[in-house]
Amino acid sequence: MQLSIIKIGGNIIDDESRLAGFLDAFAAVPGKKILVHGGGKLATRIAEGLGIKQQLIDGRRITDAETLNVVTMVYAGAINKNIVAQLQSRHCPAIGLTGADGNAIISHKRAHLPSEPAAPTNPGTGLQTSPSPNPGALPRIDYGFVGDVDSVNTPLLTSLLLLDQVLVFAPLTHDGKGQLLNTNADTIAQELARALSSTFEVTLIYSFEKAGVLRDPGDETSVIPCITPAAYEDLKSRNIIFAGMIPKIDNAFTALRTGVKKVIIGKAEHLPRLLTGESGTTLLHE
Amino acid sequence: MQLSIIKIGGNIIDDESRLAGFLDAFAAVPGKKILVHGGGKLATRIAEGLGIKQQLIDGRRITDAETLNVVTMVYAGAINKNIVAQLQSRHCPAIGLTGADGNAIISHKRAHLPSEPAAPTNPGTGLQTSPSPNPGALPRIDYGFVGDVDSVNTPLLTSLLLLDQVLVFAPLTHDGKGQLLNTNADTIAQELARALSSTFEVTLIYSFEKAGVLRDPGDETSVIPCITPAAYEDLKSRNIIFAGMIPKIDNAFTALRTGVKKVIIGKAEHLPRLLTGESGTTLLHE
Repeated sequence: MQLSIIKIGGNIIDDESRLAGFLDAFAAVPGKKILVHGGGKLATRIAEGLGIKQQLIDGRRITDAETLNVVTMVYAGAINKNIVAQLQSRHCPAIGLTGADGNAIISHKRAHLPSEPAAPTNPGTGLQTSPSPNPGALPRIDYGFVGDVDSVNTPLLTSLLLLDQVLVFAPLTHDGKGQLLNTNADTIAQELARALSSTFEVTLIYSFEKAGVLRDPGDETSVIPCITPAAYEDLKSRNIIFAGMIPKIDNAFTALRTGVKKVIIGKAEHLPRLLTGESGTTLLHE
Repeated sequence: MQLSIIKIGGNIIDDESRLAGFLDAFAAVPGKKILVHGGGKLATRIAEGLGIKQQLIDGRRITDAETLNVVTMVYAGAINKNIVAQLQSRHCPAIGLTGADGNAIISHKRAHLPSEPAAPTNPGTGLQTSPSPNPGALPRIDYGFVGDVDSVNTPLLTSLLLLDQVLVFAPLTHDGKGQLLNTNADTIAQELARALSSTFEVTLIYSFEKAGVLRDPGDETSVIPCITPAAYEDLKSRNIIFAGMIPKIDNAFTALRTGVKKVIIGKAEHLPRLLTGESGTTLLHE
């Protein structure tokens, strides 16, 4: 049985008319489907409104207890329930979930990782010495209430999909001990795709600001329609795929190696045509 | 098959240790169960923090668009997902829902009702004249985005309960046209109880600040253990049940007339003993 798992980012969620257009397209997708949504700017606005300071370390937001409360309210409350109500109005039966609901996604709080070793400076010469040989002594970053996924409750999610419900996931998981955890929406989509591949033929779709993987970053019409692992190596060696695209595509190929049938990268609004291969970039295992 | 539907109010939700104690008791209740939670003070705190003015008319809060957003965040996000995560940690598999999820509860926006006719004063005598004979001319109150329940998706809720999931309802419904609506938690509990009585033997439990219906309002040990309709008429005629208790008990008897097997009123913390009849007041059809 086919299952489409579609991840949309904050840029769509923040724009009411784009979101409405996307939900029209999503509701029209045939068969079983899961929507995973990101956060958007509302959480930042609410946190600012409530006077909660956003801590950033190395450009990454730290989810302290107050921020976790805000993202729980915004992601699982405002955004998730509005999307569900909008889908119902499009005759698309939907249930909104976090990873805590139905024990859907168990995670653990991310361990404190040593930050990139900042090479200490020799006070005499002013030159950098080699990094400390003892990583235990390096400063550790606590990202706060952020979860790394351990497991997905495949039997329950399968049962819900077989009740002909569309599942709408907010980017939150839990540790099974009562703690909710903020979790990256791309990761949630990927973990769901991997787990549900045991039961379904999964197509994983990452919505993206561009029309797909471009041959020429400045030309939206230069979408590469299809990439195999061999083609990927070639495109990387010729510097056609570089920088920020590489981790995205690496993740996509990881998903394919773990059982996902197809990964598609493209514009959310092009959704029906992404599934037929008329738009976006399709990554294939072979 | 037995089903317990338990409604808890804001006083429990606002007190972390009382809530934890209640959830211990709730997790221990055998069989199928549904928890319906109210709002608590967090919504007011968040609204105040965001500078959203609370409008009250005749002492009732008006749910304008901004307030609806706040209650959606707080009820469906913060409160609902924390309760679900807490239940999972007690090995009680739970799914948090609003009426929009799974199209569980359809409602319509409350029609503007004429306010209680404030009898105009005769400017000459200063005496009140009789109320206007034309109710169409009375001022109407718009309570905003408040929903009155139309229907419950009994087949889907039955399917979820048969998947051995506990359902945790936030007090929000939707109109099926994309609009979420704020809905009284007592009403949601009652409507779920009525609808699910077609499939289950339903016990409906209203948690309450007192230990049950009291013979002497000042004496917590004077709980009346059991009330039938005949006993109710007698207690009312002797003024033992009066004022605020009457609409609560009227609602309970309405539930019993529509198929609910038993209604129990008592303290949330007494939960296991409420179900066995050792605590609280049980209302019976006959």
